[in-house]
Amino acid sequence: MRPIEFYFDFSSSYGYLGSTRIDGIAANYGRQVVWKPILLGAALKVTGLPPLPAVPLKGDYSRRDFARSARYYGVPYKQPSVFPIATQAPARAFYWLDAQDRPKAKRLAAALYEAYFTRDVNISNPADTIAIAASMGVDAAALEAALNDPAVKDKLKSEVEQGIARGVFGSPFVFVDDEPFWGVDRFDQIERWLREGGF
Amino acid sequence: MRPIEFYFDFSSSYGYLGSTRIDGIAANYGRQVVWKPILLGAALKVTGLPPLPAVPLKGDYSRRDFARSARYYGVPYKQPSVFPIATQAPARAFYWLDAQDRPKAKRLAAALYEAYFTRDVNISNPADTIAIAASMGVDAAALEAALNDPAVKDKLKSEVEQGIARGVFGSPFVFVDDEPFWGVDRFDQIERWLREGGF
Repeated sequence: MRPIEFYFDFSSSYGYLGSTRIDGIAANYGRQVVWKPILLGAALKVTGLPPLPAVPLKGDYSRRDFARSARYYGVPYKQPSVFPIATQAPARAFYWLDAQDRPKAKRLAAALYEAYFTRDVNISNPADTIAIAASMGVDAAALEAALNDPAVKDKLKSEVEQGIARGVFGSPFVFVDDEPFWGVDRFDQIERWLREGGF
Repeated sequence: MRPIEFYFDFSSSYGYLGSTRIDGIAANYGRQVVWKPILLGAALKVTGLPPLPAVPLKGDYSRRDFARSARYYGVPYKQPSVFPIATQAPARAFYWLDAQDRPKAKRLAAALYEAYFTRDVNISNPADTIAIAASMGVDAAALEAALNDPAVKDKLKSEVEQGIARGVFGSPFVFVDDEPFWGVDRFDQIERWLREGGF
């Protein structure tokens, strides 16, 4: 069976919440998950929509809902002081490591999300992303070079374009056998889809 | 205890899905529900957002999600051929009847939603809204007059304005003791909120 694809942006609160749950849900049904960080801003450009925090009424509600949803799922959460952020550095770090060691790349993603959404570390800074990776035993100099490697930049660009071509417009965005699910609030539907093979 | 407030637009697919569940959930915790139809277009104007079906990528996804979410909740659903629609007629009919007979107004709302979302009846037409009400024993001539009664128009306008002033920007939008919940996908959180008195 094909792996489940989990698209997310490192600056997305709901992506963070989803990242803590997707592999566990998939494992219950014997499925693997491929993680694919993207740049949500590029997808939003296609939709013509502004970033959520900037929308009148909806932005205020969302900040309340981020924290409440985190409590609902039992996930630690602290609203970052700079939000949203550009996420090229963490996304490139992820794809570079993913090509070498897939499980370790997921652990790095989890550590980056945890730093941004519970300790207010601004992971848009390459230095912060590198420090977090280094604390996991990643070669800091090699990663620093990778963040400016045209091949790594192209990999991220290509994943963003492929995601948009498949209809990704938000985070998290999950494909189960080509069926698209947007939002951590669709994970209940994902579970049923996996259990019943569609519904 | 104060009643739960259920804001919705008669042209909202998720509002329709929510309308089939909200009273049952509330009843499990001994709570009443007041239904408040609004004109979502007026709220969207405040947010600056376009109607969902018009958004690139997101519009296509949403049509798929409407039908899938209806199957998930076990609710009959057929995408209306004209969508979205203006909903002054059904909303005014509701408030007019609500002032006389609250339970009957809810039954009318359910019948209007069912007509639009399962039988493709365009309830934006006053004649269709009146016919549905008449089939429930409502005085058709009195309702026809009410749809043009300035007091009824003002009641709807006032509810829309009050909703926006409280932060309503979508449908369904529910308040439980001033805690706002947007979307039928937050009804699980509403249940827990009612069970635990917040979380």
